[in-house]
Amino acid sequence: MAKAPEHEHPKKAFGWAARDSSGLLSPFKFSRRETGEKDVTFKVLYCGICHSDLSLVKNEWESNQWASIYPMVPGHEIVGEVTEVGSRVQKFKVGDKVGVGCMVGSCQSCDSCANSLENYCPTWIHAYGAKYHDGTTTYGGYSDIMVADEHFVVRIPDSLPLDGAAPLLCAGITTYSPLRYFGLDKPGMHVGVVGLGGLGHIAVKFAKAMGVKVTVISTSPNKEEEAIQHLGADSFLVSRDQDQMQAAMGTMDGIIDTVSATHPLLPFIGLLKSHGKLVMVGAPDKPPELPVLPLLMGRKMVAGSATGGMKETQEMIDFAGKHNITADIEVIPIDYLNTAMERLAKADVRYRFVIDIGNTLRSS
Amino acid sequence: MAKAPEHEHPKKAFGWAARDSSGLLSPFKFSRRETGEKDVTFKVLYCGICHSDLSLVKNEWESNQWASIYPMVPGHEIVGEVTEVGSRVQKFKVGDKVGVGCMVGSCQSCDSCANSLENYCPTWIHAYGAKYHDGTTTYGGYSDIMVADEHFVVRIPDSLPLDGAAPLLCAGITTYSPLRYFGLDKPGMHVGVVGLGGLGHIAVKFAKAMGVKVTVISTSPNKEEEAIQHLGADSFLVSRDQDQMQAAMGTMDGIIDTVSATHPLLPFIGLLKSHGKLVMVGAPDKPPELPVLPLLMGRKMVAGSATGGMKETQEMIDFAGKHNITADIEVIPIDYLNTAMERLAKADVRYRFVIDIGNTLRSS
Repeated sequence: MAKAPEHEHPKKAFGWAARDSSGLLSPFKFSRRETGEKDVTFKVLYCGICHSDLSLVKNEWESNQWASIYPMVPGHEIVGEVTEVGSRVQKFKVGDKVGVGCMVGSCQSCDSCANSLENYCPTWIHAYGAKYHDGTTTYGGYSDIMVADEHFVVRIPDSLPLDGAAPLLCAGITTYSPLRYFGLDKPGMHVGVVGLGGLGHIAVKFAKAMGVKVTVISTSPNKEEEAIQHLGADSFLVSRDQDQMQAAMGTMDGIIDTVSATHPLLPFIGLLKSHGKLVMVGAPDKPPELPVLPLLMGRKMVAGSATGGMKETQEMIDFAGKHNITADIEVIPIDYLNTAMERLAKADVRYRFVIDIGNTLRSS
Repeated sequence: MAKAPEHEHPKKAFGWAARDSSGLLSPFKFSRRETGEKDVTFKVLYCGICHSDLSLVKNEWESNQWASIYPMVPGHEIVGEVTEVGSRVQKFKVGDKVGVGCMVGSCQSCDSCANSLENYCPTWIHAYGAKYHDGTTTYGGYSDIMVADEHFVVRIPDSLPLDGAAPLLCAGITTYSPLRYFGLDKPGMHVGVVGLGGLGHIAVKFAKAMGVKVTVISTSPNKEEEAIQHLGADSFLVSRDQDQMQAAMGTMDGIIDTVSATHPLLPFIGLLKSHGKLVMVGAPDKPPELPVLPLLMGRKMVAGSATGGMKETQEMIDFAGKHNITADIEVIPIDYLNTAMERLAKADVRYRFVIDIGNTLRSS
């Protein structure tokens, strides 16, 4: 018989977990493995709340072959301070500020792993709700301590505040990676960002730091001021405004589409120049229609991108450190968690909730 | 009042034209412009029949903002022998073997034109059924003579038979260009070709000549022998055979999808490795569904590609000359044209009809 989560490993751990697909989170005692020779153990200080946390606590990705495992301790935007390192750890020492994102393991032998694209390894291991190499369940960052193989740990630059840096570990790399891979990072280029949420607002910051002209495309006209004045976007399009959209046809080298709700692709394909690239980083429940002729007529493409590999995640956060990029966040105490989830479901946050684990998570 | 086609220009011309959306073709007297200073005039010897000729004579692309103009002389796979050149023509002389493909004009000032991607110029001019710079209608290669700006004329290598070379001007460049642009031309790569018709069979030949491993994917099991024994493909998948498809999942660097009928994309996206590319070169009437999560999970892309620019068309046909690549054709006399169109509608041709214009088109 499998051991109870509290007794599975030697190290006591405490967090908040969902127990079923109601998604309601509550205090939860579990355990973590001892610090292995390649492991880094750290005290969690902050953890961002990603929209996928909300989907997974409610088991909404079951139809995508991603069934949730309960009890589930979510959280894959985890930052903290190293308290112990294994004997063979080379990159970190006690006291270092570190982070763990979506991944805590991969096969380390496939082509993707060989190219530090662990995120595309067929057997990559999610930070929570997955089975680790030893067969035990992974638990995420809504918890007091974290143990992870140093390969999946990144260093947080000293210049970045830890709370604002946490969301970079998922929202940051998810937008940074496609800007780089699809070559949408050249000064003078024009890139659209669809949706101004957790991912979109960071996409704007990264693209601007790369020297790219950025247009935010949103259904909400009231986000224009925020996009331009605060985030530094160059222009703003209301996607429902036919005249605005028509005037911008054929002007963009690429678009990062952060919207998970199913939406028509044709208007965005129309915004692209010839050879332009529409990159989806959110996955709609229902597949949209693909208008093929407009793709052909401009040699355009629609691509997907999911987070990034470990080498690029470190590169991304170093770039953020250099350019002083953090997420715009609302820091919350752990006991606000269920209310935050409700607000997140209504997109009522600018732009990311981050749980103050260090100061508010108490096991007693 | 506009002049009748026969009196519009000084040079008498004769061909076969469709008069309405019945698509029925019959003898037609018209005219062509005098050889301008940058023009090449040639006697048409052969013209391939592209599937788009069939669509356009029947006005089937009206819903795609491409309304047919009648009378229409189709044909954009045109080869022949130069009979006259303008005073400023530099590349050609009388007696040269030349060809004209889909384009006879473009703006020559946009970014696409500047990069010899005239096929993506917003105002490129189709070889037939379009308006030329002077406002007159363009007529294609089902006709005795052709006059074209030398920029849109390519030289046919001496090593190639003119009849088998004709289809390269559309089917050839349409498959060659995406193999090059999307980097699916590296020895050792594995490329799938969906559909073994006019485009597909040439895609196999080009990919093989580039040193790529080729798998043909078809609904027809009876094409396997042809694909492997005759065209040199390395393997064959019956797309309706779940076991075969399952076994080939994640093995291809790219796929050239030549099928114009609407079909599900998910099985082909599944065949791709991570970072693989599905390139559509045929445009279905109804948009297929795009399964986004499988794109994300492997950073895959679905792209479109339409013919190629003039520089690349010359490069393609030189490559064909070097590797002795021609289309597999059924040469027909002009009075077989309507029967050929009926057979083409039923995909009853291996793999391209080519009209023997030189020997069978007579104006009397």
